[in-house]
Amino acid sequence: MSQEETDGGCSIERALAVVGDRWTLLILRDIFQGRDRFGAIRSSLGISRNVLSARLDQLVGHGLIEKVPYQDRPVRYRYPLTERGASLYPVLLALLGWGDRWLTPAGRPPPLTLVHRACGARVPAELCCPDCGEALHPGNVRARLSAAGLARP
Amino acid sequence: MSQEETDGGCSIERALAVVGDRWTLLILRDIFQGRDRFGAIRSSLGISRNVLSARLDQLVGHGLIEKVPYQDRPVRYRYPLTERGASLYPVLLALLGWGDRWLTPAGRPPPLTLVHRACGARVPAELCCPDCGEALHPGNVRARLSAAGLARP
Repeated sequence: MSQEETDGGCSIERALAVVGDRWTLLILRDIFQGRDRFGAIRSSLGISRNVLSARLDQLVGHGLIEKVPYQDRPVRYRYPLTERGASLYPVLLALLGWGDRWLTPAGRPPPLTLVHRACGARVPAELCCPDCGEALHPGNVRARLSAAGLARP
Repeated sequence: MSQEETDGGCSIERALAVVGDRWTLLILRDIFQGRDRFGAIRSSLGISRNVLSARLDQLVGHGLIEKVPYQDRPVRYRYPLTERGASLYPVLLALLGWGDRWLTPAGRPPPLTLVHRACGARVPAELCCPDCGEALHPGNVRARLSAAGLARP
């Protein structure tokens, strides 16, 4: 874990130091959707080889993905998620839910629908209390500063 | 809604065109935590007056916050969240949860603890199916492309 990641600030600030960048989150979205090979990500996002290469290296460095050869001559890599990377799923689901609600053009369905396999309900998806299951919103959540405190007020 | 927001891509891509920037999400975090005045945000984040001013104008333009005078001579503004802005709460909670889990230095508590007022349980917080309440992860969610399709494969 780099110094940059753990110094100061709340966990949101720390998280954004790692993934607070549009390309990074779009690359992760692609990998979540099964496009974990260099060429597939590149043609999906339409970014330059150099930029993609640099971002993938950063993601490997932060331990969010692995670099795994899947072919020799020429050698080619895929970039599957680590457990740490896969744990970002709620972040992407939350962004998807917000985009669906607020940025879908009137009269058109959201481009992608996610369905909970077990019960068939459309997600997203609410953030729920892990204990009682109630949906969370700013009005029913209370913040408590830890003894260690925040680096900034 | 700007052209940029609704053109192409899935809702994650659209959402990141609006909030896919570290400063933007940190400003929103501050406002969620009750720091909605220019001076309070500036001293919390330590960013320049010009940068903060530009980001706040963008957020007002995207309809995520309002600009409300709270004092004359000199005139001073606060920037409360709109409903659209407040709907980003799950995104910030998800980032907080990920940062707590993966970026908290060993042996130290997360800097900020959130508690569900009703039952006292610590959040975050899982993303739950809105229908049956089961926690969601990539393995139990199925993606379905809408008839409108994605702009990119």
